[in-house]
Amino acid sequence: MVTVFKQLGLIGCGLMGGSFALAMKKAGLVKQVVGYSKSPSTTLRARQRGVIDTEAKSALQACAGSDLILLAVPVAATGAMLKTIREFVRPDVLTMDVGSTKQDVVDAAAKALGWNAQYFVPAHPIAGKEKAGVDAADAQLYRDARVVLTPTEATSVDKLRQAQQLWEALGGRVSVMTPAEHDAAMAAVSHLPHMVAFAYMNGLLGQPEAARLLSLAGPGFRDFTRIAGGDPHLWRDVLLANRSEVAGQLRQLVLALQDFQRVLHAEDAEALEKLITRASDARAQWKPGA
Amino acid sequence: MVTVFKQLGLIGCGLMGGSFALAMKKAGLVKQVVGYSKSPSTTLRARQRGVIDTEAKSALQACAGSDLILLAVPVAATGAMLKTIREFVRPDVLTMDVGSTKQDVVDAAAKALGWNAQYFVPAHPIAGKEKAGVDAADAQLYRDARVVLTPTEATSVDKLRQAQQLWEALGGRVSVMTPAEHDAAMAAVSHLPHMVAFAYMNGLLGQPEAARLLSLAGPGFRDFTRIAGGDPHLWRDVLLANRSEVAGQLRQLVLALQDFQRVLHAEDAEALEKLITRASDARAQWKPGA
Repeated sequence: MVTVFKQLGLIGCGLMGGSFALAMKKAGLVKQVVGYSKSPSTTLRARQRGVIDTEAKSALQACAGSDLILLAVPVAATGAMLKTIREFVRPDVLTMDVGSTKQDVVDAAAKALGWNAQYFVPAHPIAGKEKAGVDAADAQLYRDARVVLTPTEATSVDKLRQAQQLWEALGGRVSVMTPAEHDAAMAAVSHLPHMVAFAYMNGLLGQPEAARLLSLAGPGFRDFTRIAGGDPHLWRDVLLANRSEVAGQLRQLVLALQDFQRVLHAEDAEALEKLITRASDARAQWKPGA
Repeated sequence: MVTVFKQLGLIGCGLMGGSFALAMKKAGLVKQVVGYSKSPSTTLRARQRGVIDTEAKSALQACAGSDLILLAVPVAATGAMLKTIREFVRPDVLTMDVGSTKQDVVDAAAKALGWNAQYFVPAHPIAGKEKAGVDAADAQLYRDARVVLTPTEATSVDKLRQAQQLWEALGGRVSVMTPAEHDAAMAAVSHLPHMVAFAYMNGLLGQPEAARLLSLAGPGFRDFTRIAGGDPHLWRDVLLANRSEVAGQLRQLVLALQDFQRVLHAEDAEALEKLITRASDARAQWKPGA
């Protein structure tokens, strides 16, 4: 039922792309992987680790002969990359990305590919690790991960089905939604928390006592700020691309914080406990990918 | 050099108290542990797990014959408990708490104990786990944890030294500061993040799409919101007790968020990247208890 691909052309051999290649190999879904990264040392390392079989000197070289192409590059680079490889985006090839924002990717794909954008399936596997890079690539990264596919009206139904079967074969839980729905949801559950974690770190660093404060931080701080260690290029692009949705979610947070300020100012212990209980119960019930 | 205690009177056999008892036993620093919890089933479970040796029917019974008393109860209950056991707070006994706020505890101790407050050493071991309760108690909880002692001008220098040696023997890294310094620092690195995590959950829950949003949340969300699962009674008391410091820290966060809003509105990619890099670098360099 699931297609076995002849060759994966992997563009970007970091954590996301490298993990995809490893997972495809492990599942026996691809015969060979030709990889390209902007940095030759990454491509070399990917081959040394067995993430790819062959190093390509260019993105075009990685695509030549591939019936599956995965773009795992920063979202802001997706449009230019699709333009570069446009001759390979065609009916007999499944092309996907893994970017964290989707409206901008879909717009860039339409612009770069025109009518052939129908053969490109925008994908966002919601997975990650504290460490990025090819050395962190992991065949298990997408197991049980939510994978969002965001077809447009133009997207080929066959390609969409093929993409869905592929991600499910890798252990992903596929959801299909519009690019706008995806971006709105991600603003809420990912982009805003990242921005808040970044801002929180900066708010601490701006205080004269910053070094002492950081030395007193414990396990709660460790977890709350883990995402503040995210890659600046990646998050710059994501926050810019999705800024209006993020701004909308920030308003929700500010309103919820004002509830806390109000009950604290009133020293209303009962109302405060209710606010905390609501959050605590919901968090206790939450399960990833449920 | 480190005192070996004859008997620990443990008041509150949950995660913090239970872990202290287990650590003391493991280190060979106490001969027997008599424990009391408000809930008899907790006390029973503590004995069954070997956290305590003897169940006490009251706090007074746990204190009788003890040369070390640990109060591991909610901070708001500390004053009343110290009043109950006041006859046992005296020169030949080391009494400590483990509460997350210190100014309120110190004030309550002065009121409950008067002159004998000198024999009480306010302590805050900065450690925790996702799960609370006696079943989560762990002899390793305080290993490498920061432990803040907040003596007042009245605190006995001998008792302070004894407390410091004891926590160090359990693997803690002791800092000594005033209650006010402690509360200001904790507002920054712990209490504000908790309030933000609670408010963030509530901001999500208030949206019509909440269930769908939560189903799309991934590992970043999991870590960012872990502390939102905190105990509502405990955090109600902490946020109320330290509300003015928390409000001050919230202002710092709001200012830092406004920096993000400004550069996003201006679509200033360079300035945005600088803001993120500052946070990301600081987080990458941070180590717990450093």
